[in-house]
Amino acid sequence: MTDQKIAADVISAENEKRAAALKSDYAALGEKLARGNIDIEAVTAKVAEFFVAVPSWGVGTGGTRFARFPGLGEPRHIFDKLEDCSVINELTRATPTVSLHIPWDKTDPKELKAKGEQLGLGFDAMNSNTFSDTPDQARSYKYGSLSHVDAATRAQAIEHNIECIEIGNAIGSKALTVWLGDGSNFPGQSNFTRQFERYLASMADIYKALPDDWRLFSEHKMYEPAFYSTVVQDWGTNFLIAQTLGPKAFCLVDLGHHAPNTNIEMIVARLIQFGKLGGFHFNDSKYGDDDLDAGSVEPYRLFLVFNELVDAEHRGVKGFHPAHMIDQSHNVTDPIESLISSANEIRRAYAQALLVDRVELEGYQNGNDALMASETLKRAYRTDVEAILAEARRRAGGAIDPVATYRASGYRAKVAAERPAVKGGSGGIV
Amino acid sequence: MTDQKIAADVISAENEKRAAALKSDYAALGEKLARGNIDIEAVTAKVAEFFVAVPSWGVGTGGTRFARFPGLGEPRHIFDKLEDCSVINELTRATPTVSLHIPWDKTDPKELKAKGEQLGLGFDAMNSNTFSDTPDQARSYKYGSLSHVDAATRAQAIEHNIECIEIGNAIGSKALTVWLGDGSNFPGQSNFTRQFERYLASMADIYKALPDDWRLFSEHKMYEPAFYSTVVQDWGTNFLIAQTLGPKAFCLVDLGHHAPNTNIEMIVARLIQFGKLGGFHFNDSKYGDDDLDAGSVEPYRLFLVFNELVDAEHRGVKGFHPAHMIDQSHNVTDPIESLISSANEIRRAYAQALLVDRVELEGYQNGNDALMASETLKRAYRTDVEAILAEARRRAGGAIDPVATYRASGYRAKVAAERPAVKGGSGGIV
Amino acid sequence: MTDQKIAADVISAENEKRAAALKSDYAALGEKLARGNIDIEAVTAKVAEFFVAVPSWGVGTGGTRFARFPGLGEPRHIFDKLEDCSVINELTRATPTVSLHIPWDKTDPKELKAKGEQLGLGFDAMNSNTFSDTPDQARSYKYGSLSHVDAATRAQAIEHNIECIEIGNAIGSKALTVWLGDGSNFPGQSNFTRQFERYLASMADIYKALPDDWRLFSEHKMYEPAFYSTVVQDWGTNFLIAQTLGPKAFCLVDLGHHAPNTNIEMIVARLIQFGKLGGFHFNDSKYGDDDLDAGSVEPYRLFLVFNELVDAEHRGVKGFHPAHMIDQSHNVTDPIESLISSANEIRRAYAQALLVDRVELEGYQNGNDALMASETLKRAYRTDVEAILAEARRRAGGAIDPVATYRASGYRAKVAAERPAVKGGSGGIV
Amino acid sequence: MTDQKIAADVISAENEKRAAALKSDYAALGEKLARGNIDIEAVTAKVAEFFVAVPSWGVGTGGTRFARFPGLGEPRHIFDKLEDCSVINELTRATPTVSLHIPWDKTDPKELKAKGEQLGLGFDAMNSNTFSDTPDQARSYKYGSLSHVDAATRAQAIEHNIECIEIGNAIGSKALTVWLGDGSNFPGQSNFTRQFERYLASMADIYKALPDDWRLFSEHKMYEPAFYSTVVQDWGTNFLIAQTLGPKAFCLVDLGHHAPNTNIEMIVARLIQFGKLGGFHFNDSKYGDDDLDAGSVEPYRLFLVFNELVDAEHRGVKGFHPAHMIDQSHNVTDPIESLISSANEIRRAYAQALLVDRVELEGYQNGNDALMASETLKRAYRTDVEAILAEARRRAGGAIDPVATYRASGYRAKVAAERPAVKGGSGGIV
Repeated sequence: MTDQKIAADVISAENEKRAAALKSDYAALGEKLARGNIDIEAVTAKVAEFFVAVPSWGVGTGGTRFARFPGLGEPRHIFDKLEDCSVINELTRATPTVSLHIPWDKTDPKELKAKGEQLGLGFDAMNSNTFSDTPDQARSYKYGSLSHVDAATRAQAIEHNIECIEIGNAIGSKALTVWLGDGSNFPGQSNFTRQFERYLASMADIYKALPDDWRLFSEHKMYEPAFYSTVVQDWGTNFLIAQTLGPKAFCLVDLGHHAPNTNIEMIVARLIQFGKLGGFHFNDSKYGDDDLDAGSVEPYRLFLVFNELVDAEHRGVKGFHPAHMIDQSHNVTDPIESLISSANEIRRAYAQALLVDRVELEGYQNGNDALMASETLKRAYRTDVEAILAEARRRAGGAIDPVATYRASGYRAKVAAERPAVKGGSGGIV
Repeated sequence: MTDQKIAADVISAENEKRAAALKSDYAALGEKLARGNIDIEAVTAKVAEFFVAVPSWGVGTGGTRFARFPGLGEPRHIFDKLEDCSVINELTRATPTVSLHIPWDKTDPKELKAKGEQLGLGFDAMNSNTFSDTPDQARSYKYGSLSHVDAATRAQAIEHNIECIEIGNAIGSKALTVWLGDGSNFPGQSNFTRQFERYLASMADIYKALPDDWRLFSEHKMYEPAFYSTVVQDWGTNFLIAQTLGPKAFCLVDLGHHAPNTNIEMIVARLIQFGKLGGFHFNDSKYGDDDLDAGSVEPYRLFLVFNELVDAEHRGVKGFHPAHMIDQSHNVTDPIESLISSANEIRRAYAQALLVDRVELEGYQNGNDALMASETLKRAYRTDVEAILAEARRRAGGAIDPVATYRASGYRAKVAAERPAVKGGSGGIV
Repeated sequence: MTDQKIAADVISAENEKRAAALKSDYAALGEKLARGNIDIEAVTAKVAEFFVAVPSWGVGTGGTRFARFPGLGEPRHIFDKLEDCSVINELTRATPTVSLHIPWDKTDPKELKAKGEQLGLGFDAMNSNTFSDTPDQARSYKYGSLSHVDAATRAQAIEHNIECIEIGNAIGSKALTVWLGDGSNFPGQSNFTRQFERYLASMADIYKALPDDWRLFSEHKMYEPAFYSTVVQDWGTNFLIAQTLGPKAFCLVDLGHHAPNTNIEMIVARLIQFGKLGGFHFNDSKYGDDDLDAGSVEPYRLFLVFNELVDAEHRGVKGFHPAHMIDQSHNVTDPIESLISSANEIRRAYAQALLVDRVELEGYQNGNDALMASETLKRAYRTDVEAILAEARRRAGGAIDPVATYRASGYRAKVAAERPAVKGGSGGIV
Repeated sequence: MTDQKIAADVISAENEKRAAALKSDYAALGEKLARGNIDIEAVTAKVAEFFVAVPSWGVGTGGTRFARFPGLGEPRHIFDKLEDCSVINELTRATPTVSLHIPWDKTDPKELKAKGEQLGLGFDAMNSNTFSDTPDQARSYKYGSLSHVDAATRAQAIEHNIECIEIGNAIGSKALTVWLGDGSNFPGQSNFTRQFERYLASMADIYKALPDDWRLFSEHKMYEPAFYSTVVQDWGTNFLIAQTLGPKAFCLVDLGHHAPNTNIEMIVARLIQFGKLGGFHFNDSKYGDDDLDAGSVEPYRLFLVFNELVDAEHRGVKGFHPAHMIDQSHNVTDPIESLISSANEIRRAYAQALLVDRVELEGYQNGNDALMASETLKRAYRTDVEAILAEARRRAGGAIDPVATYRASGYRAKVAAERPAVKGGSGGIV
């Protein structure tokens, strides 16, 4: 019996208000889908089984190098964070796991596990940190970590990643995500080849420490914090890493980490085809690694990514089981609300992709009927699947309108009273 | 008699080592230029009179939202910063003014002025800050400052800018630069039109407080810290601001604030043509507002910007006197070295642009001889003008090789001993 | 009584098949909208009055610089093109006007007018061509047209534009669109300022020839066919043109003509605010001026543009009446189908934007509730308005499913039999 | 004894005028380099042995999809093209080979070989064409070639590539370059995975036909002519191709085929490290595949690419011998002049890269001295090596100033008299 942070009667009272409208919308949609030979119940069932992990760092207010403006009731530590994460899951029933970030979430693994069990939460991929220095760290990552020219600094970074595996192992995680800021700010600062050789050697050491049933995710990113070159700059390099390391190594795709105009869904298809898609860091972006809420700026792109995932399922790709995680920075919203909304948007894209008539689509593709192929995707995409999402939540004990229910619950005010206010301030530049 | 932070004998000893080589290079270059009917002495004289302001915030180590890795001897306050700025000017003789940032540099203006005089430094444009909150600020800028929906927040931001003018007025500055982070992270968050109306009204209030001999610089930037829209997002909006406000209002161009692939030199030309080029924040970038050292990544672009400036001088454009300022973030170098190097690069681009044969160029342009027009620019650009730059420095009392001389001086070690070490840490996201 | 290219009984037979489903969907949507206090009939009425012009060049298969692959039944001349355009309008009832391109569509204006009347088509903005040479042209545009260094070449280009006005005047058009390829391929090739001065002087001459009730649209584009600089490179320059020329001059926005990542909807807002939005060339793009079908790649962007247009209507902006035109290149589809589909997508975005609760939105904006402001837009956007679009078509005599009806009509086979087959080869848009 | 298209006495007369200045500049540069322990003669020797192939299509005036504006004396066929190529080599002594494009250059291989020998020209990589249809082609490439859904179309494209190998084999070529336009214009048009599987199978068939001493180059490109997706969209996919095919398969890097902001030199380094760098298509670009003259827009980027090549030589990378080819579109210049200039710029970047003190650089890299590492590259880059380039040309029988000498020779006027004038019109690269 889990400890609910949002009282069940709040949820049911809010659901009560919306039950009739949902019933009507769900029926109308069911009828419409039936005309296209789609069983709405089958879709709702699949949606109900689709989950995405929330990042522990996502429940705190994010910031930029210029400033951070905290909100009320900022979580003080991993236990506060887990409670916030629990709220998201209680309302959406879509986020039963949390992805931790070490060292920020470092604490006694037994306590972590107990707290998770108490809240009904499990633990997804572990995240290490070698992009910033911690107070008592022997060697600085100013000039790199796993690819640093200095062997002792590399050893320290390797050691830290192995520690993340150990913590994760103790709490039931099955994957390690390695993202690092290593790169250069000036042409000539680093020898690209030597730097990558060092990176690969360090990763090989981490790989050796990986339990048999774990996966190692490397994450590519075009730039930032390094502004001339980045060691793992794109999926090409990321693929080389996963291939060099071995069968437990996979590529993680963060939707905001690519060059302008990049066709991300195609990268997803390539990684699936060559057996190296590890999973996702979902978010949205317009310019760079903006870490905006999933689906808030380019929702069709998110759908097209899910179109590839459902296509892979449809084709029965062997060993296909990508990890789904959110990675966002909530600078101007209540982070809990943004994560609720984002989990819904991700499920929305999945539901829409499930509606694609893949037999029809293949026919249009084979007939070079580009217009109808496009229309086949768009017809699925423009279906308003909110009733399916809401019904899936409702049936699982969640909220028909999770943001409204969250607001009605008074949770934020409650934690604001318990947790001390935090002052904002300027970021890294001054 | 100014207080020298780098002993004159250090400079002369270092110059001594390089005097013969410089003499030889300068003579060879002079002979070569003479063949093209260019008098090297005239170029050297113009270069010696070209100055660029350094930003007070530039002498501290910069960072990103992920981390900041301080160096040794970080300046503790504006007086330390002014001493560091003084070092740059003593060695380059190219940076006799400093641009302040309020509130960080806020102190008794009389002391500021006295310190400046002691070090032989003047004060360039003032910079306000409404992109982050200061500890005791009544209202937060989380949702905007000069364009905030709340009138009292706008009033606070206006008041702060007027205070910047007052401080500047007391220390001899003649311009205010307004850059703000206002924008939005979600489609729909702000009404673009209402937001810009509020911005313009706030700026009009600031403009009214401007002394007659001052200029008001507004600065455009495509994105960051706002990631869906930014109020002053490009030069088009910036031009509308300057035109709406009046004759003392001008546009500031930061080289790193544009969309990918933008032809910045053309924007510079347009602003000159329509009388609204206020000046520059020099830096270099590859991806976004990377704030890299000027000329370190795309030196030809910097040259092409200066080509427009020298062309405007050549055409005798009325009222043309843009402000030159550096705005960079030095994350992996000694900031003093980066600023020395950047000041040199900026002068280098200017010197190269002075070598363009503008009569010949105009002939090729009028004859549609694209190849020779291009070659005319490139011939000037590929001239190694280091001897001119070095000779201009030497004659003004600076160093032939300012970075080497700085290293030889032991300045960094000295201030590292005086100023307490600063711990690094993570940026805004965690 | 117009001459129908698609027999009315084909339309009614096809509509018959889909009538019941439409009725059901329309009723369900009506009920759902009513819950949000929206009267579906009011929306359908507004949609039925929304029109977009098709470009005469759009009904021929387009190409790239690498190749063009014609389809069957390519139109041979403007009269064939008008018949094809008529098909689009008969099925969609959304495209009652055609935008001509001179010299390709040049013929006796009386015949043009008569043909238009016969088909029930009117004429939208005229388009001139100075980006390519015509066989018997005295002077080449290789090095520019309206901004050419040679006065006689400029005069020829001015004359051509005036001729376009005269033809347009004779057939009932009320606007001239000027897009030209002038620019440069090498730094130094052109003096930006001199070139723009010449452009402005040429445009002033054209402006003088404009009838009082006409509008002059200038169109900006970042690059292509010029690859280093373009005279009218962005909306900033475009605004300066419209402002310099006078009250009949306006800016045209082609959605594919911007730098990567540009926030186009914000440019639309700025042009509305400063009274210079002339209208649109609708299309979609992922990389550059891809001229893809409207709404096929980034449908939410199209919605956000319409959100600004409906917002301007809502605010009662004085003199607001932008021209709506499609400008696409149909390289792999039947151009008639692509234009049918695109007209629908444009109406779809309009319909969705009409559903935005603007009072609620303003409340969220004023309350800095970014999440709910975003959700307000997205709720409108994700409404499946296809039933509204179909019903508006049906009521006006068009097809419930216009592409299927077009295919059922056999029109393409008919014209393929009448019009000789065309061989493919290297590119060109005409 | 080859047939010279530019009379030797024209070259010597022109060289005579510039001999004294060159001697002086060469001596001054030699002295300066000697101070840094660099022997100018060693550099000049290496430069003299560096060659780059010119593309047969490059000597005709290029165009865009909007227009093509031919010049005087356009080559009518491959024999005219070879004569023009010969002029470039006679003056630069840097371009002894030509890269052919089939079907445009298809003719009796014996005649090709004889003409090459007569002119002193050899043949570099062969280029196939499956991006456009030829008049009597059985099946169209409108919807793809090597990745087409139709097996017979794929077979036709494979056959064409094999024919290119056969022609190449007969004339002494040792490589086939495969670039194709296959992709899609709409989401959904193609199944990414199926399409790539078909592509790989087709390439495997071509690979089988490759002689043992040949190399197969696949070329990636982000977009154009396909505007939603491209089969070989980036180096990641390109690497997978080369790896899948086998040891004779390599990746070709065209400098203009990447996403905005991409760090191309890093891609070059990765391909070298993993043994798959086949070579280059040199050109420059600002926006997309602009095909501008090498080094005309971002010369420092070209230098950074060569910095990687020289670094690989320096490190003694096994099997490292990339092919150097130019691929440009000369729209506004005399193509011969652009190719002369581009060959020089490419040699310039090579010469500058040779000047990098790699021992010093490695020291700075290992010491994390980013500023001095950058300065080490820039010091080499800003060296004006024109005297080295000119001296290398002069010694080999070429021109000190090849463009001026070309103009003095009257070659263009001569061929303009022999070859009929061509009318301009809409675009195409050939």
